[in-house]
Amino acid sequence: MFKNISHVGIAVKDLDASADLFRKLLGKEPDHTERLPDHKVSVALFELGESGIELTAATDADSPIATFIEKRGEGVHHLSFLVEDSEHELARLKQLGVRLIDEKPRLGANGCLVAFLHPKSTNGVLVEISQKPH
Amino acid sequence: MFKNISHVGIAVKDLDASADLFRKLLGKEPDHTERLPDHKVSVALFELGESGIELTAATDADSPIATFIEKRGEGVHHLSFLVEDSEHELARLKQLGVRLIDEKPRLGANGCLVAFLHPKSTNGVLVEISQKPH
Repeated sequence: MFKNISHVGIAVKDLDASADLFRKLLGKEPDHTERLPDHKVSVALFELGESGIELTAATDADSPIATFIEKRGEGVHHLSFLVEDSEHELARLKQLGVRLIDEKPRLGANGCLVAFLHPKSTNGVLVEISQKPH
Repeated sequence: MFKNISHVGIAVKDLDASADLFRKLLGKEPDHTERLPDHKVSVALFELGESGIELTAATDADSPIATFIEKRGEGVHHLSFLVEDSEHELARLKQLGVRLIDEKPRLGANGCLVAFLHPKSTNGVLVEISQKPH
């Protein structure tokens, strides 16, 4: 089952400029920045209570974030929910008829195990489930 | 200053069908449903820890949600942040150069005072600030 919202992922063109904007909006520094070569993105995470805002910029021209921005412009890219056990949750979702992008969890930011669901199954929202590292 | 994420607003075509989907995803019933004639929408709110998911459907053909879905399809519509004092926050944002949609807070779901910021100022994200009723 989904627990709280882990974070909202926002696709941005310029990570530094956007981090500066959110620094002002949220009145705090990013808590974590990381480059994720496997996902071809760099991220800056602002924790906010039990959730957070994850700014995500492409590091390569063929990054999924570059494609997203080309098609839709900057904006909310995905919605991530915390789960206890990502493998168990993927099996549950599959049984519910939800279309999965990732059949198996893979390594995401902050050492979390993440998997994406297909937005066609979830009201046009790209949903990520995320399991904290042990 | 923004506190936690109050909720993520999702534009949907069919509120009942979408509430049913999120009932399955989140494993719980909606905590609150409401029709907001001023905004020309009906909402179903699922609380999740200190945040929530607000499904929003148009009640009129000229509802902003109908226009949004026509242009972009179903999906994340806005991102709402809890603030202590919405008037004070609007003044702070204006001073920061953020473009406002609402110069003054107005009544939103659950008796909250809400105001929208222009997505051009906030990385393509339609940001709402929300103050709880006293």
